[in-house]
Amino acid sequence: MLEKLKREVYEANMLLPEYGLVTFTWGNVSGIDREKGLFAIKPSGVPYGDLRPDDMVIVDLDGNKVEGKLNPSSDTATHAVLYKRFTDIGGVVHTHSQFATSWAQAGRDIPCYGTTHADYFYGDIPCLRVLTGAEIDEGYEKNTGILITESFKDMCMAPDAMQACLCKNHGPFCWGKNANDAVHTAVVLEEVAKMAYHTEEINHHVQPAPQVLQDKHYMRKHGPDAYYGQR
Amino acid sequence: MLEKLKREVYEANMLLPEYGLVTFTWGNVSGIDREKGLFAIKPSGVPYGDLRPDDMVIVDLDGNKVEGKLNPSSDTATHAVLYKRFTDIGGVVHTHSQFATSWAQAGRDIPCYGTTHADYFYGDIPCLRVLTGAEIDEGYEKNTGILITESFKDMCMAPDAMQACLCKNHGPFCWGKNANDAVHTAVVLEEVAKMAYHTEEINHHVQPAPQVLQDKHYMRKHGPDAYYGQR
Amino acid sequence: MLEKLKREVYEANMLLPEYGLVTFTWGNVSGIDREKGLFAIKPSGVPYGDLRPDDMVIVDLDGNKVEGKLNPSSDTATHAVLYKRFTDIGGVVHTHSQFATSWAQAGRDIPCYGTTHADYFYGDIPCLRVLTGAEIDEGYEKNTGILITESFKDMCMAPDAMQACLCKNHGPFCWGKNANDAVHTAVVLEEVAKMAYHTEEINHHVQPAPQVLQDKHYMRKHGPDAYYGQR
Amino acid sequence: MLEKLKREVYEANMLLPEYGLVTFTWGNVSGIDREKGLFAIKPSGVPYGDLRPDDMVIVDLDGNKVEGKLNPSSDTATHAVLYKRFTDIGGVVHTHSQFATSWAQAGRDIPCYGTTHADYFYGDIPCLRVLTGAEIDEGYEKNTGILITESFKDMCMAPDAMQACLCKNHGPFCWGKNANDAVHTAVVLEEVAKMAYHTEEINHHVQPAPQVLQDKHYMRKHGPDAYYGQR
Repeated sequence: MLEKLKREVYEANMLLPEYGLVTFTWGNVSGIDREKGLFAIKPSGVPYGDLRPDDMVIVDLDGNKVEGKLNPSSDTATHAVLYKRFTDIGGVVHTHSQFATSWAQAGRDIPCYGTTHADYFYGDIPCLRVLTGAEIDEGYEKNTGILITESFKDMCMAPDAMQACLCKNHGPFCWGKNANDAVHTAVVLEEVAKMAYHTEEINHHVQPAPQVLQDKHYMRKHGPDAYYGQR
Repeated sequence: MLEKLKREVYEANMLLPEYGLVTFTWGNVSGIDREKGLFAIKPSGVPYGDLRPDDMVIVDLDGNKVEGKLNPSSDTATHAVLYKRFTDIGGVVHTHSQFATSWAQAGRDIPCYGTTHADYFYGDIPCLRVLTGAEIDEGYEKNTGILITESFKDMCMAPDAMQACLCKNHGPFCWGKNANDAVHTAVVLEEVAKMAYHTEEINHHVQPAPQVLQDKHYMRKHGPDAYYGQR
Repeated sequence: MLEKLKREVYEANMLLPEYGLVTFTWGNVSGIDREKGLFAIKPSGVPYGDLRPDDMVIVDLDGNKVEGKLNPSSDTATHAVLYKRFTDIGGVVHTHSQFATSWAQAGRDIPCYGTTHADYFYGDIPCLRVLTGAEIDEGYEKNTGILITESFKDMCMAPDAMQACLCKNHGPFCWGKNANDAVHTAVVLEEVAKMAYHTEEINHHVQPAPQVLQDKHYMRKHGPDAYYGQR
Repeated sequence: MLEKLKREVYEANMLLPEYGLVTFTWGNVSGIDREKGLFAIKPSGVPYGDLRPDDMVIVDLDGNKVEGKLNPSSDTATHAVLYKRFTDIGGVVHTHSQFATSWAQAGRDIPCYGTTHADYFYGDIPCLRVLTGAEIDEGYEKNTGILITESFKDMCMAPDAMQACLCKNHGPFCWGKNANDAVHTAVVLEEVAKMAYHTEEINHHVQPAPQVLQDKHYMRKHGPDAYYGQR
């Protein structure tokens, strides 16, 4: 079942090593079929070189396996919550990519220092708190998803204007309209995280880019009168 | 029309991913036919892997499309102004390359710390101010070109002795005698930006290279008695 | 003799250049046959491009060559001591990989800043002192092995919960259940060392990850109720 | 003439892009035939992709071209002086490799922080002063060679124990027993320069490696009782 989705999710997973976002098995991508309420996700701990489309595991929105020989990613419950609560997203990705993870470990939001960032993310990319011991014990992966979605609600942040977040001492989660789009966001996040790192080293007193410039770039790509690309 | 120019511009665009200067579609190269007063430029938002020579768009010096099925780069108006006001240049390139963009985001000129820089650029590589809200509203891309050319005039800087600049919170623009040459400059700029970064980390009190050494290296490549290369 | 082991050790050695952990001949991997009490190790100073399975040298636990045309790695005596005293390990690797070696040169333990680290190493990765002049003279390589094993005993650190250490001003040693597994650890160590480096640059006052999060990640992969991967 | 030498020097030059030590034409390697008193060197400004063994230029020890259709490297006079005054060396290389050049631009000697450095270089790698305006005018490239050899004499530094130096605000020169060996040194220098950079970032108060450890590693590879490699 869902052969087309499994292939798309497989191909999106294979982009992670291609873009240098994963070492060994440290990442997972999923994509959802909204009509059926099921998503396909990478199996847990399988090296990318051995992965085949058929290995993708089909899971429902409560994180229960519906089809597949292998165990789904250990982060499946996080993906499930994101799909349940961010009702417009179609793909989710988690990586331990070098610079995004370093910002997460440093416990800092990534400030918007320029147009590369503003072209994709509206405002600073938030770094969320660590779960409490009780939350970890009660359900680490599920509560990670709840933390992300609750935090976005609290911050009045729309998941389509900010398609990424950092989990403190852990790493990034990204999403998008499908699996491929979510990986695209993960690549941009890593590039932006790296630039922000270098920017602060070059100027220890640097300030975020002026709001008018951020607005201009975000809007020329995503606003109602967007004119970037072929439309 | 302009098949030869379109091929040259296509090939120069394809050098950007080859030299690691672009992620996704974040860059564009153009080249001009001065007799006809027309230039060829990359179409907007097309991935490099899909690009063909025929996709290059022909534009006049007011930025109007003259030939081509696709929309030209969203930065076309900047290229047009640069060609109009820097009357000796034949190619223009814009990228978001990692280190040049980090200097732009940091809002600093790149000091000349050594002969790698002095072999190509005469003096510090300038970082120009952000446009005002009014300038952005009135015509962001066109006014970017005007800012560059006006700044060079104000600084008494010749565009053939300084073939690059940084736009604050945005990224670099480079130029040269043709499209390929402009990309060559963009590669050098990135390498020089990276070295300057590392240099300052190694010595927090570093000073620019002595002027006599800067002059020597610039002149042995570009002066009237140049003796570098095969002449 | 031990043809299968020699091939495994050869293949593990060839992973070092593949993962970018060695320049020239700066690394060596060994693997042991516990029943026979013999281990296979890379020959000294042979470039990876020239290496063949047959070149692996068979050595006993006192570091004496038992079979092989070539001299074994100059670090053989260190490997021998590690096998003798860490009785459950099956493979050992030494590299001069860029970031792990930089931490060793800096003389600092690598703090656990996140889950990438906690997924593999329980606690900070220790940096051990330099040998004294007398210890160096008496037997540099052998005493390096003794220092590692004695230090782990003094620190009450189990070699299966901490499969790596840094030798100050020198570089890392890693181990695992076989040669391939030891190289896996060396790759993770390098990645973790790089992230810790970037993390501290982003936040000069960063603290280690909360213990509950470290425990959770280490235990979901290595604890009695582990649920990561395909079991 | 000297076909074998020209091929060796050609192959050594081609290692520069292979090891990532050059961008465009920013480097040159030469090798000498001591009996004939002639050396072969890369032609000036020719891209590595276009280079053929036959393009190597034969030059005498006064820097005069003896054979070849092309102009020799603009740094030829420096190579000539090095061969004349360092009578035991057989190959010379100059690059603008990223980290070695950054140390040169920072104007600092590279301290010996560990065994990777001590395995190849005995002591700190010296950074030499910039030539004066008069020295530059009188003969920039020749006087660069004179500065290097005079400095080594003044510092009582033997060119076989220290096969590299940095020219301030410029970049590294390396040498060895032949062209290939000189390139080997240039690769090691870059790796060591990068590690020293990262080491200082990790520990701002780091001290050089203890002298006994430096001696041990240098001597086990280069001393009278050396036991590294296959002898």
